[in-house]
Amino acid sequence: MPDTIDYARYDRIRPIRWTGDALELLDQRKLPFAVEYVPCRTSGAVAVAIHALIVRGAPAIGIAAAWGVVLAARELDAATGGGIAAAAEAAERLEPVMQQLNAARPTAVNLAWALQRMRRALSVAGEDWRTALFREAKAIESEDLAANRKMGRLGAQLIANGSGVLTHCNTGSLATAGFGTALGVIRAGVAQGRIERVYAGETRPWLQGARLTVWELQQDGIDATLIADAAASHLMKTGQVQWVIVGADRICANGDTANKIGTYQLAIAARYHGVKFMVVAPSSTVDMATANGGKIEIEERDPAELLAVGATRTVAEGIRAWNPVFDVTPSELIDAIVTERGVVERPNRVSMQTFFGH
Amino acid sequence: MPDTIDYARYDRIRPIRWTGDALELLDQRKLPFAVEYVPCRTSGAVAVAIHALIVRGAPAIGIAAAWGVVLAARELDAATGGGIAAAAEAAERLEPVMQQLNAARPTAVNLAWALQRMRRALSVAGEDWRTALFREAKAIESEDLAANRKMGRLGAQLIANGSGVLTHCNTGSLATAGFGTALGVIRAGVAQGRIERVYAGETRPWLQGARLTVWELQQDGIDATLIADAAASHLMKTGQVQWVIVGADRICANGDTANKIGTYQLAIAARYHGVKFMVVAPSSTVDMATANGGKIEIEERDPAELLAVGATRTVAEGIRAWNPVFDVTPSELIDAIVTERGVVERPNRVSMQTFFGH
Repeated sequence: MPDTIDYARYDRIRPIRWTGDALELLDQRKLPFAVEYVPCRTSGAVAVAIHALIVRGAPAIGIAAAWGVVLAARELDAATGGGIAAAAEAAERLEPVMQQLNAARPTAVNLAWALQRMRRALSVAGEDWRTALFREAKAIESEDLAANRKMGRLGAQLIANGSGVLTHCNTGSLATAGFGTALGVIRAGVAQGRIERVYAGETRPWLQGARLTVWELQQDGIDATLIADAAASHLMKTGQVQWVIVGADRICANGDTANKIGTYQLAIAARYHGVKFMVVAPSSTVDMATANGGKIEIEERDPAELLAVGATRTVAEGIRAWNPVFDVTPSELIDAIVTERGVVERPNRVSMQTFFGH
Repeated sequence: MPDTIDYARYDRIRPIRWTGDALELLDQRKLPFAVEYVPCRTSGAVAVAIHALIVRGAPAIGIAAAWGVVLAARELDAATGGGIAAAAEAAERLEPVMQQLNAARPTAVNLAWALQRMRRALSVAGEDWRTALFREAKAIESEDLAANRKMGRLGAQLIANGSGVLTHCNTGSLATAGFGTALGVIRAGVAQGRIERVYAGETRPWLQGARLTVWELQQDGIDATLIADAAASHLMKTGQVQWVIVGADRICANGDTANKIGTYQLAIAARYHGVKFMVVAPSSTVDMATANGGKIEIEERDPAELLAVGATRTVAEGIRAWNPVFDVTPSELIDAIVTERGVVERPNRVSMQTFFGH
């Protein structure tokens, strides 16, 4: 599959920059009104940045944490005068840092996965353990970008010329090393001339669609139209949308997919209207140890997120709210799961096992 | 059907108060943080208040406009020294005012309907035309309240004990003379002990659910839980909701129903989960001259409503948004249409004709 996408045009945003002595994180709390990178020079600063949502999106959090371990190794050298020779000793001394980073967002799958890769890199290293950690962090970042570009091309192949698409939340460069997952497919589809209309749901309560997705696409010169989450079905009825394309936080062994609240509703509406539904995520998101979506615990966050928008309080005192962050889309509503290892169409227990089983 | 509901407890809010020399309108732009009535002493002030959304909700707008005509009659008397004896002359002099009021919100069905009733009252009056106008305005208001209470009891009868319900937008006392349409059914269902759980969608972009509905229920001592519009399907999956109950802006001859954007999506999700779907509206909302929902033009409002929340801008400059205000729910997704004339279950062209045809 030749790669003819002009990435200089369609892949310009980077939420994470390693400068050689610091990790710079694009402050996503301030977007779209200020583009500011926060420099992190210690692993503790990285953990704080993850917890405070300066960096967000499962793949981006994993990459940031990997660089956090590199910073921790330098802190360790500074404290010991570079006196630690054995990788095993470094691993022991760095383990509390790993756990601190992991605790910054306990539910993000890729965070634990990236830290586990850093542990493994240490476990097979010798006295070159500093270089091994650096190379592993670099690899996690560059493999993510490569996976996104591959998923972009694989997903775009499914889309007919002249199509319109609807996405949810932010699954773009801002959530990854670059290019994005679902938004990567949309970038590729636009670059290849397949996609003519892009719609983004605003994604209450955090408004990632309104604040991040349409801004990110604007930076790459892609026109997108913002809609209220509640307008998605009416949009589908107009015939302007042929695919709903979303990311994933966890994909179960039968293809059931946990993703940002509202995804499930879009999948139901898509099926009702004969609109296709695509999930795009790196294979590290596939969790063959979880049989189906019924086994996933849905995180509920502070109801206060529904009671105000930014500094503007919108709801009376004393009102109760329910604020689940994720929902689960059953695999029977999914037409294609796209990973960097390939596409599973009409996913179910058997086809997922064939593709991802051991 | 005996009426055993304690209205002193369950019907305390009035958005419209006639004081004898002024019309006081509860300023819904300032709710829930300030409860302020705006006094209108001229028909022009009423038109401005309708246009500015100080008063909203189709039935409430109609009632306010009727009182606006009463105020206009007094202005006419002041200008002419009470010199107009014939109702026909009064009708001619008041017609520009009628048109000004009608233009304040051109799409609200009940506004035109209420003004037409005022015209008819004038057309059959003699020199008592001032009294006739006053009585007609009073009748429009009191009939609306009575209709809502009757719909409340009719709708509640459909709901099994121990049920949970989800509503959308604001269809309550604030949108009517009192008690509400869909929210009237919920009030009656709670009063009768049938409904144990009430959920309200926040209803982007205006947030009528977040700002008005949960506050209004709180005033009557009814606990309601606010959710993001995108969380409705996930809520249904938990089994906490047995009915979705909504209002209507127009009900077509085949039962297709136009209502606030997001209603259609709830109806699709309800059917997918086996949750029942109820539409509650006075019979003046039924439009037998419109064959089906395909004939309804959907109003689109300023995209700016999606680009900010209150004073807080949320979206980058230069972003496009699409902001349809209504959508159409096809009758095959509706389990019951409740009016003050009775309940149409599983509405279609034939059953609607039987019930509302001439």
